[in-house]
Amino acid sequence: MAENRMTFEELEARMTVAPFHRWLGLKLLSMDDGGIQVAVTWREEFAVNPDKHYTHGGILATVIDVAADYALAARFGRPVPTVDLRVDYHRAAMPGDLRVEARPIRIGSTFSSAEAYVYDRDDKLVASGRGVYYSALPK
Amino acid sequence: MAENRMTFEELEARMTVAPFHRWLGLKLLSMDDGGIQVAVTWREEFAVNPDKHYTHGGILATVIDVAADYALAARFGRPVPTVDLRVDYHRAAMPGDLRVEARPIRIGSTFSSAEAYVYDRDDKLVASGRGVYYSALPK
Amino acid sequence: MAENRMTFEELEARMTVAPFHRWLGLKLLSMDDGGIQVAVTWREEFAVNPDKHYTHGGILATVIDVAADYALAARFGRPVPTVDLRVDYHRAAMPGDLRVEARPIRIGSTFSSAEAYVYDRDDKLVASGRGVYYSALPK
Amino acid sequence: MAENRMTFEELEARMTVAPFHRWLGLKLLSMDDGGIQVAVTWREEFAVNPDKHYTHGGILATVIDVAADYALAARFGRPVPTVDLRVDYHRAAMPGDLRVEARPIRIGSTFSSAEAYVYDRDDKLVASGRGVYYSALPK
Repeated sequence: MAENRMTFEELEARMTVAPFHRWLGLKLLSMDDGGIQVAVTWREEFAVNPDKHYTHGGILATVIDVAADYALAARFGRPVPTVDLRVDYHRAAMPGDLRVEARPIRIGSTFSSAEAYVYDRDDKLVASGRGVYYSALPK
Repeated sequence: MAENRMTFEELEARMTVAPFHRWLGLKLLSMDDGGIQVAVTWREEFAVNPDKHYTHGGILATVIDVAADYALAARFGRPVPTVDLRVDYHRAAMPGDLRVEARPIRIGSTFSSAEAYVYDRDDKLVASGRGVYYSALPK
Repeated sequence: MAENRMTFEELEARMTVAPFHRWLGLKLLSMDDGGIQVAVTWREEFAVNPDKHYTHGGILATVIDVAADYALAARFGRPVPTVDLRVDYHRAAMPGDLRVEARPIRIGSTFSSAEAYVYDRDDKLVASGRGVYYSALPK
Repeated sequence: MAENRMTFEELEARMTVAPFHRWLGLKLLSMDDGGIQVAVTWREEFAVNPDKHYTHGGILATVIDVAADYALAARFGRPVPTVDLRVDYHRAAMPGDLRVEARPIRIGSTFSSAEAYVYDRDDKLVASGRGVYYSALPK
């Protein structure tokens, strides 16, 4: 199964290496056996349009992928390549920071699945989804 | 069915209203009965990490959603809300501009489906996907 | 929101109207505020091949769709049309009855989401997935 | 890449080994470099209910998975395990035989993607979808 668990500090440091993750203002809030929680810092560029400036669906898809991936990274010691991603949009995400909860669905030696739920400032579920990740050891 | 076709100029203008679309450097390349083509301008923030700086999967998910949505917008006269999105990642997208081809799968009075394919500078398929969009007329 | 909750007996009766559901040997095991549990009775036609006769992925996709739909039916008073379905296969499902747990993710006035998890006789997760359902009131 | 192409007769024979495929009345109609076409023979058990007896979504999901898988089998010399599946339902499928067109999206040495489109007797698109398949050589 090749598990190689990371500490909170290791996961936190690893998560902010990617330039795109820094742009998204990602912060690791918590990590335990059940999964992780990640904060996303609102920025104006997230907006769908200048009037109705709620958060673009692409941002929500991205934070679902990242949080699900890092819920697996916490187990495997490294982020793992996304094979595919599926996102459901539940309601418009008004401007403001977001909180993402993610957990593994299945840990496998070749591929693994994980899911994530995105909440707005009022703790309303705005989007959720799941991905398949390629978790075989690099050769 | 409530079709309300847009011209190239109308679609082009509509596509760059969203702050996030401007950040992505989206450009409408072509539009015909079969669908649309969109260019995405590379920027350093797209990178997954400072060393292996290929494009983040969240960026690829976003441009699939946007291109599929605007392939429908060309028919409906407005972008339509994404109900859900699925993205398959086929190979790492090296730094460089991207080209997205998108087309409607089904035009419906309540829901519509559309798909998109993302190509890198060498015309290699790097990701593809499809979404369901809520195409009922706003009341 | 148009909720119209069903009793256990109503849901049980409704679930076995469909010829395909009777062929699948579906039985409602439990129903509460969190969701429902459904049993699937193994039959030889489920087999992928005569040697390795584990359960066909199409059967697993079907029972995920049905269970997720009826988790919503319990709230809406009727099954609701599936807009789309996504299924992850986690491990081969050996011959034997299956148990499916399903719950709503989001109840909406136009569309709703629900998810389901399929377990084999040894309570191992063999597949899971989610669907979007069109939950607007019929006109 | 490990391609190992099958003839029409080999693929046809391989496709009807599974008891579930025989129950579905699958027939290989054509096969070329672009993909395959498969016929599905209507049977009364497909029905959603005794009154509105259109085809159950689980049947449509199954034939999308099978056709997409065999479009890859034609290249790899064997069917390949489904990692995950997504299906979009476009309109109710009235009783009657179905025709499924399937083609590879990407052939890979570890994962491959394929898509399928299901048409009713009047050549209307009733459902479509795509799957990811694990195409690494068995060890």
